Amino acid sequence: MNGKILDFRSDTVTQPTDAMRAAMAAAVVGDDIMGEDPTVARLEALAAARFGKEAALFLISGTMANQVAVMALTQLGDEIIVGEESHLFNLEAGGIAGLSGVQARPLRSEAGRFDAGAVRRAIRPRGVQSPLSRLLCLENTYDLHRGIPLPADYLQAMADLAHERDLRVYLDGARIFNAAVSQNTTVAALCAPIDALQCCLCKGLAAPVGAMLIGSRAFIDRARWVRQRLGGGMRQAGHMAAAGIVALETMSLRLGEDHDNARHLAEGLAGIDARLVDPSLPRTNVVQIDFGASGRDATPIVAALQARQIRIRQIDAARCRMVTHWGIDRDAVDTALAALREILC
Amino acid sequence: MNGKILDFRSDTVTQPTDAMRAAMAAAVVGDDIMGEDPTVARLEALAAARFGKEAALFLISGTMANQVAVMALTQLGDEIIVGEESHLFNLEAGGIAGLSGVQARPLRSEAGRFDAGAVRRAIRPRGVQSPLSRLLCLENTYDLHRGIPLPADYLQAMADLAHERDLRVYLDGARIFNAAVSQNTTVAALCAPIDALQCCLCKGLAAPVGAMLIGSRAFIDRARWVRQRLGGGMRQAGHMAAAGIVALETMSLRLGEDHDNARHLAEGLAGIDARLVDPSLPRTNVVQIDFGASGRDATPIVAALQARQIRIRQIDAARCRMVTHWGIDRDAVDTALAALREILC
Amino acid sequence: MNGKILDFRSDTVTQPTDAMRAAMAAAVVGDDIMGEDPTVARLEALAAARFGKEAALFLISGTMANQVAVMALTQLGDEIIVGEESHLFNLEAGGIAGLSGVQARPLRSEAGRFDAGAVRRAIRPRGVQSPLSRLLCLENTYDLHRGIPLPADYLQAMADLAHERDLRVYLDGARIFNAAVSQNTTVAALCAPIDALQCCLCKGLAAPVGAMLIGSRAFIDRARWVRQRLGGGMRQAGHMAAAGIVALETMSLRLGEDHDNARHLAEGLAGIDARLVDPSLPRTNVVQIDFGASGRDATPIVAALQARQIRIRQIDAARCRMVTHWGIDRDAVDTALAALREILC
Amino acid sequence: MNGKILDFRSDTVTQPTDAMRAAMAAAVVGDDIMGEDPTVARLEALAAARFGKEAALFLISGTMANQVAVMALTQLGDEIIVGEESHLFNLEAGGIAGLSGVQARPLRSEAGRFDAGAVRRAIRPRGVQSPLSRLLCLENTYDLHRGIPLPADYLQAMADLAHERDLRVYLDGARIFNAAVSQNTTVAALCAPIDALQCCLCKGLAAPVGAMLIGSRAFIDRARWVRQRLGGGMRQAGHMAAAGIVALETMSLRLGEDHDNARHLAEGLAGIDARLVDPSLPRTNVVQIDFGASGRDATPIVAALQARQIRIRQIDAARCRMVTHWGIDRDAVDTALAALREILC
Repeated sequence: MNGKILDFRSDTVTQPTDAMRAAMAAAVVGDDIMGEDPTVARLEALAAARFGKEAALFLISGTMANQVAVMALTQLGDEIIVGEESHLFNLEAGGIAGLSGVQARPLRSEAGRFDAGAVRRAIRPRGVQSPLSRLLCLENTYDLHRGIPLPADYLQAMADLAHERDLRVYLDGARIFNAAVSQNTTVAALCAPIDALQCCLCKGLAAPVGAMLIGSRAFIDRARWVRQRLGGGMRQAGHMAAAGIVALETMSLRLGEDHDNARHLAEGLAGIDARLVDPSLPRTNVVQIDFGASGRDATPIVAALQARQIRIRQIDAARCRMVTHWGIDRDAVDTALAALREILC
Repeated sequence: MNGKILDFRSDTVTQPTDAMRAAMAAAVVGDDIMGEDPTVARLEALAAARFGKEAALFLISGTMANQVAVMALTQLGDEIIVGEESHLFNLEAGGIAGLSGVQARPLRSEAGRFDAGAVRRAIRPRGVQSPLSRLLCLENTYDLHRGIPLPADYLQAMADLAHERDLRVYLDGARIFNAAVSQNTTVAALCAPIDALQCCLCKGLAAPVGAMLIGSRAFIDRARWVRQRLGGGMRQAGHMAAAGIVALETMSLRLGEDHDNARHLAEGLAGIDARLVDPSLPRTNVVQIDFGASGRDATPIVAALQARQIRIRQIDAARCRMVTHWGIDRDAVDTALAALREILC
Repeated sequence: MNGKILDFRSDTVTQPTDAMRAAMAAAVVGDDIMGEDPTVARLEALAAARFGKEAALFLISGTMANQVAVMALTQLGDEIIVGEESHLFNLEAGGIAGLSGVQARPLRSEAGRFDAGAVRRAIRPRGVQSPLSRLLCLENTYDLHRGIPLPADYLQAMADLAHERDLRVYLDGARIFNAAVSQNTTVAALCAPIDALQCCLCKGLAAPVGAMLIGSRAFIDRARWVRQRLGGGMRQAGHMAAAGIVALETMSLRLGEDHDNARHLAEGLAGIDARLVDPSLPRTNVVQIDFGASGRDATPIVAALQARQIRIRQIDAARCRMVTHWGIDRDAVDTALAALREILC
Repeated sequence: MNGKILDFRSDTVTQPTDAMRAAMAAAVVGDDIMGEDPTVARLEALAAARFGKEAALFLISGTMANQVAVMALTQLGDEIIVGEESHLFNLEAGGIAGLSGVQARPLRSEAGRFDAGAVRRAIRPRGVQSPLSRLLCLENTYDLHRGIPLPADYLQAMADLAHERDLRVYLDGARIFNAAVSQNTTVAALCAPIDALQCCLCKGLAAPVGAMLIGSRAFIDRARWVRQRLGGGMRQAGHMAAAGIVALETMSLRLGEDHDNARHLAEGLAGIDARLVDPSLPRTNVVQIDFGASGRDATPIVAALQARQIRIRQIDAARCRMVTHWGIDRDAVDTALAALREILC
C-alpha cells in the first residue's frame, strides 16, 4: 500500500486484494472481442443480476463507461442535462462534445439535488433552433468532493420527470455501492427507475481497473459496438474481469467500514476546530475540510501533511478533501488526525 | 411590411428597403467560391475597415458566422465559455458540440455581465482529465430578451482576463451597432480588444440575410475553408452582398430611432402599470415586460394583441418582449400602447 | 456577363437572367426561420411537385444540401458508399466526416456506373468492429469532368440493391435536369426510386445561389433542423427563392441547347485532332479534352486561350474540360474552336 | 489453450504465458491516471527504447492506439490516406470519422504496397473545397489476410514522399515484430522514418491485452490527453503492463517459429493442391487459402474442420486464412494438414 504513505487523496488509489491478484493469475480467458471470454461473461451476468437489469458490459474505466453510455443513448446534435459538479462534465476531457457531438447543459444542485423546476426548465421545447433534450444524467454518490448519497425517492422523482418529457435517465454510479450501503438499501432498489447506469469496480471496490455498464439488452448491444469504436474492446479481458468479480462479490460488503472511518475522521476534525467540517457529517467515504472558514490557507497544511507521509487532495485555496477506502484503516485515520492537530494547533 | 400587422416579436422580421431591392437587382456578380464576386469583395473590405480589423467574410446568417468562428478558433475536445442566456448556447441547435466537438461552459451574468472571478474559475487548469479552455465568447448587445449593451471597458477587462490565460475572445455582435449607437461610440472602438467577431446585416440593419465575420487575415482564411464545409460558400453571392452594403452604409445610422421608440414604449408601459417594466429603462431596441409582477398571465394578453394585428414574443408564462426596428415607427408604438392599455385596464 | 470573356470553366459561373433580377427585387418576403416567407414556401412546393415527392427545402448551396442530407440520413459512426469521383467525396471540405462523423467508402465506376457486385461487397455485414453501412450516394449527372447522365433503369437497380440491404439511397442531382433532358425523361421519373435528393438552382439553371433538398416529409423536417445547426436557416430568403422559381420554371427547359453546343464543340475538336475527345460524344454539357493523347501539355494551351479571353478548366497535366451553359452560345463555341485550332495547328 | 481446439483463426486468441500470469499477480502498481504506476512507467520506457523514439504510452488495445494516434495527429476536417485493406479503415467501427471527424482516403495496394504516384495524387492540393491531407497511414505487416511484411526502403520512400508534402507518417505496427523478424531487422530500424506508430502486445506477443503508442514526447503528451477522453486512462494498470513487459522482452524473440510453421503449413497445402496457396509463400504468420481456385466452396470445408476441433477464418465464399501463433506448434500444423487432406481428397 505505497510503503508507509497514508493516501487520503482518493479511493482511486486502492491496491487490489490478494484474492484479486490470485484471481487475475488463475483466470480462464478467451478472446472477448469474439465474445469468447468466459470470465468476462460471468462478470457481466453477475453485474446484471446484482442490479436487476437485463444485461451488462465490462469496460476498462468509469470514464469509458460514461462516454459509451452517452454515445449509445444520444445522437449528434442532442443535449443532455448534467450536474455542474459532475464527473461527466468536469473530468472527462470534453468527451460529451468531443465523442458524441452532444451539448452538456450543466445544472446547479442544492445539497447534491437538482431542483425539479430547474430540471423542467432545462428540458427544451422542440424547435428548429434548439438542440434536442435527450438524456438526464445523475451521479450517485454525487460530487467527488462531498460524496453525497441520493435516496431512492429522489431518483424516482427525477426519472418520472424525465420520462414524462421523453428523456432517458442515465446514472453515473461510480460509487453506487457507497450510496446503497450508506442508505441501507440495495443497488437494485436504488437503480430501479434508471434506464442505464455504470458502477466502478476500482475505487472503493479496489479492483485495479474496470467498470460495468448496465441496462437493457438493446442498450448493451449498442454500447458494445460503440465501445469498440473507442478501442475499448479487449482480447483476453478475463484477467481484469476476475479481479472485478472479487470486487463485486466481496468488496462491496465492506464499504460501511470506510463510512465509519470517514465519520470518525470528521468528528475528530470537528474536535480540533468546529469550523473545519460541514455540520451534516459525511454520509459516505468523503470528508470535505474548509480551512478557509478559520482563516487558514490550505496549501501549507497539505505540504505539512505530505512531509509526514500523509497525502490529501486540495480542492482550492481554502478547501481539501480526505477520502477513506480499503487502504485506510482506523489507525490511519487516527494518525492523520494527530498530525492535523499538531499542524493546526 | 406584412400588411397592417405590427410585428414587435423581433428585429429579424425587418423588410429590406427599396434601396436594397434595387441594389440586389443591379448587382455586379461573379462566382464567389472562386473568389470572383466583386460586390462581395467590396462588402468584405467595407466591413473590415468599419471594424478596424484586417479582414472580413460574408456569411448567410449570424448563426453560421458564430458556428464558423467556433470551428475556426477551436479544436475538437476544447471548451469555450459562453453566456447562459447567449444565442450561441441556446439557439444554434447544439452546433458548438455538433459541429466543432467542443464543450460549452455556460456562465451566469448579472445585468448582462460576467463576474471576473467566475470567469477565472471557469478557465480550467491544464490536466489530462480536463477539456482545454480555448475561447471566451461574449455577446453585445447581450441577451435576446433584454438587449443589454456592454461598454468598452467591460469588454477590455474580459479580453485582458482571457488573454492572460491564453484564451482568445470572440464576440457575437449580431446587434453590435445597437450597442455602439446606444453608447455613443463606434463599433471599431468597442471591438478593439476582441480577436474575432460577427455582426449581422439583417435584424436592425434590415438586409434580407447575411452576417460578417471579422478578424485577422489568418482567422478569415481559416473561416473561409470552414464555411465551405458547411456549404456556406455561394456562387453569385453579390446580390445579397449588395443589400448588405446598403445595410452597413445607411441603416446603421438610424438605430437611435429604434432606441428612442423602445424608450417611448417602456415609458408608456410604465404609465399603464409601473410593475410591467424594469426600472432601468431599455437601452437599445428591446423592452421586456413582466405581466406576472402584477399577477397576470401573459398568454391571453398576447392573444388579445394578436387579435388586434399586433404581435409580440412571449418568453414564458409571465414575460414577453417587444422589439423596435425599421418596420416599427412612433405611430406603431402608440397604437400598441393604446391596445395594451385597453387590454390591461 | 464578365465583359467579353468566354468562360467555359464551369456552369457555376452563369449570370442570372433579367427575369431573375426582377424577381429578386420584387419578391414578397418574410422571416423564413419562423416559417413565414411565402416565396420560399412557393418554391418548396413547386420543387416537391416537380420531383413527385412529399416535401422540399430551400438551401443556399448544393454542398449544403448534400451535407444536410448526409446529416439527416445517418448517425455518427455510420458508413456511406459514394463515388470515387463524386462531389461529396472530393469537393466538400471533408464534411461527411467533419459534420456527420460518418466514414465515406469510395467506389470506382466504369463509364460512370458502379458494378453491382462491388456495391454488394461494399455493404458491410453487421459486426462489432464494422461501421454501419447506411446510405448509398449516387450523383446524376455523374463526375464533374465528364457529366455522365445515368438512366432510370440503372438508378432503379442501384436503389433495389441498396433497399434490399436496408440502406437508403441519396442522389446528388446538382445537374439532374441535364440528366433528364439528355435522356428525354422527367426528373420525377428519374428520381422515383430515390429516397432523397438535391438539385441545384444555380449551375445550368443560372440562379445566383441555391439548391433544393427533396424527399419525404419526415426527411425534410429533420433536414430543416439540421440545416439550422449549420446556420443555413435564413431570414428574408424569398429574394433568392424568387430567382430559384424562375430557374426551375423556365431555365430547366433550355438545357438541350447547352447539350447541343457541347456536342458541336466536341465535333469541332475531333475535327482538329481525333485524339482530343472521347469517341462517345458528350451527352450533357461537359466536354473533356485529352491533350496528352497527342503528346501535348495542357498548361500552355490553357494560358494561350486565357490570353484570348477564353477560360477553360485544367484537370491535370494532360486534360481539361469545357462546360457549356447559359453564358455560352453557339458563336462562343465557334470562337473557342477557332482559337484552339490556331493554338494547336 | 481452449481445451483441445486448434485455433488458427487469428493470433488474437493467444493465451498468456505462465510468466505473464505470475507477473500480473506480482505487479507493483499505482494510480496511472495520476502518473504513479511504476510498472506502466517501466513498460513505456522499455518500448520507447526498443523503438528508438522519445516516448511511449500504454493503451488497452491496438484499435485504441490507432484511434488515439489519428486524434492526436489530425484536426477535424482533415483527410488521411489509408490502405484499402487496412485495419484502420475496415475494423475500427468507423472511428476515424466518428472520433476525429476526419475523412479516410483509401488506397489500393499491389502486393501490399502503394504506388508512389497514386500516393502523390491522393495528397490534395490546398483549396477551399478540399479536406486537408494531413497523414499517411501505413500498416506493417500489412493486410490481416496476407500478413505482408514491408521493408525498410519502402517505408523510407513512403515517408520521404509524405514529408515532402508536409504530411506526417503513422504506422499501425500491430504485427511490427513479425515484420522485423521475417526481414532480419529490428523494429527500430524499420520505424526510423516513421513519425508515430503502435505495436500490439497481444496477438503474436501473447499478452492478454495492450498496445504501445510510440513517438515524440510532444505526440505522446497529446496522446495521453486524447486517451483520457476515450476513457482509456486506467488506475492500477500495472498488472496488465507487467504482462506486456514479458511480451516485449521474451515473446518477440520467438516469432520466427510461427513463421516457420506458417511456411510448413503452406507447403503442406501446396502438396495437397497447388492451387490452394499463393505461389509466393507466406512470409510471416498468415496463410491465405483459395479454395475457389479449385472450384470449391469454403463454407463446408470450414465446417468440416470445425467438426474436427480445428478453427480457421473464412474470408469470403472462396477464401480462408490460417494464422500461426504461440498456441499452435508444429504438431498442430500437421494435425490440420492431415484433416484438410482428408476433407479435400
